[in-house]
Amino acid sequence: MTAPGLAIGLADIEAAAARLAGHAVRTPLLTSAVLDEAVGARVFIKPECLQRTGSFKFRGAYNRLAAMSDGERARGVVAASSGNHAQGVAEAARLFGVPATIVMPQDAPATKRLRTERSGARIVAYDREREDRVAICEAIAAETGAIFVPPYDDPFVMAGQGTAGLEMAQDLTALGLRADAVLVPVSGGGLLSGVATAFAALAPAACHPVEPEGFDDTTRSITSGRHEANAKLAGSLADALLARTPGQLTLPILKAHARPGFTAGDADMKAAVAFAARELKLICEPGGAIALAALLSGAARFSGGTVAIVLSGGNIDDAMLADCLAA
Amino acid sequence: MTAPGLAIGLADIEAAAARLAGHAVRTPLLTSAVLDEAVGARVFIKPECLQRTGSFKFRGAYNRLAAMSDGERARGVVAASSGNHAQGVAEAARLFGVPATIVMPQDAPATKRLRTERSGARIVAYDREREDRVAICEAIAAETGAIFVPPYDDPFVMAGQGTAGLEMAQDLTALGLRADAVLVPVSGGGLLSGVATAFAALAPAACHPVEPEGFDDTTRSITSGRHEANAKLAGSLADALLARTPGQLTLPILKAHARPGFTAGDADMKAAVAFAARELKLICEPGGAIALAALLSGAARFSGGTVAIVLSGGNIDDAMLADCLAA
Repeated sequence: MTAPGLAIGLADIEAAAARLAGHAVRTPLLTSAVLDEAVGARVFIKPECLQRTGSFKFRGAYNRLAAMSDGERARGVVAASSGNHAQGVAEAARLFGVPATIVMPQDAPATKRLRTERSGARIVAYDREREDRVAICEAIAAETGAIFVPPYDDPFVMAGQGTAGLEMAQDLTALGLRADAVLVPVSGGGLLSGVATAFAALAPAACHPVEPEGFDDTTRSITSGRHEANAKLAGSLADALLARTPGQLTLPILKAHARPGFTAGDADMKAAVAFAARELKLICEPGGAIALAALLSGAARFSGGTVAIVLSGGNIDDAMLADCLAA
Repeated sequence: MTAPGLAIGLADIEAAAARLAGHAVRTPLLTSAVLDEAVGARVFIKPECLQRTGSFKFRGAYNRLAAMSDGERARGVVAASSGNHAQGVAEAARLFGVPATIVMPQDAPATKRLRTERSGARIVAYDREREDRVAICEAIAAETGAIFVPPYDDPFVMAGQGTAGLEMAQDLTALGLRADAVLVPVSGGGLLSGVATAFAALAPAACHPVEPEGFDDTTRSITSGRHEANAKLAGSLADALLARTPGQLTLPILKAHARPGFTAGDADMKAAVAFAARELKLICEPGGAIALAALLSGAARFSGGTVAIVLSGGNIDDAMLADCLAA
């Protein structure tokens, strides 16, 4: 049942889970004694870095393509992304055997570009400062007939990302536990809108966005109730978390099911990437580790509670990993 | 039921699993589309790098201590180890609130030494070339009353390590699958003896040791039926896999339930550590990645089959990780 005015409900996420079964990884819910002691809380980790293509983005992209008719899919898809959505769309298109064109900023991390190409997608590079990626996508769609796959503001994309939250809620419930807080990296709000919808329906918990310092449009929008925007579009290590403002479809859900959240800066993210590698034995990218960064840097806030965090992606260049380990 | 002449059977592993529940991580069985395509097989990964203390060794150590009487445990424990067994014993002792003394080679990786100290153990360093670690342990036991916890040649240690195999066999069975091959890093044979016992009882599969090139005493011993020894005690990146010969208790089980195996060299292990970091988003140490190394370097051998591998540990120094990523 979808609440009036909201783009998705639990049934959409359950339908997405059925489409994703056997194609996406049902990532585990991990625990770490070292992390529990560091935070003074019981922490559960959803490692979406272990997901196909190295981030949760495959879930939404695959669900979007799976929901198309054969005729629609055959036209191919086009998407704009700094990297993780690009890989998700490219890999979903490869699995369905349809062409994908990805509009990607020139300064995207090399590893994300290479991995997108590896899935067989055509890359169109653009200048983040001077060109409009949406206009480029529209031109490609008009020219080739390809269908645009939005990074977050789409019910199928949101429901696909929500399957991560569905699994978390199911696994916590199976353990007989309720989370006091759920921390989710946020850019446009696709992942958090899906996760918060699943938790609201199955395992009520306070779901919070975690955003880069200076890019807290989501927390400000949840607080004010309307679309607030970031002043900048660049200037954070979390290259995947720099949307200007929440989506038209995601914000109403965030207002209904999520709470104001937290921020973490570059140094906190680097420390979290290093902690994840050394202690959790997981590779995260800076933005993918931002919920862990908020947890470690604000541990007192969560003391004594049960906290679930999403590690949303692990597509980090070797040089950036080395930089985080050296910090 | 334990077969005549064998130190452990399925019931011992099931008893260990009951003792470990809630203390060890029940690690998931992971899959990777990229790995499946690289090998041309269906691969399941048991990531014991995600285990408490970063390796499977916690399982055996905890089971050994849990099986002691209160009076025995209060005397404290002593163990000799280059690192992962050390951390497992130190952490198990910490959880039981008893003192641990670890006899560790002077050239053990710094990360393993630091992590052992972090669990509160006392470290006694020795010279790998000139001193006998068993004699040092015996002296400490005689002096302090501490109980020696062997790294592999002990029924409780073997049964504890076997819980990893029990979980793998359970998870594969739940998926309706049988493995054609199970690849397990081997030094003294504690892990493989337990894993092979679990698979033989629950999900018959060809269980193979994977050893460093030049240190293939286990495969030679399984083949000849008697204890074969390595000519060297050092000279491999797999610092955790350099036992001279299989155990007195492990070899009979390996002869009954395991097959001759494979080897991998330093370059293959480095490549596997890099593959694990970049593609699986998992941190492994070189020896911990040796089954993956054998799989990637001998992919043709496994083509079309279903293969399960253990990533046995992830305690790698930053410098060694950088070295593997640069190779």
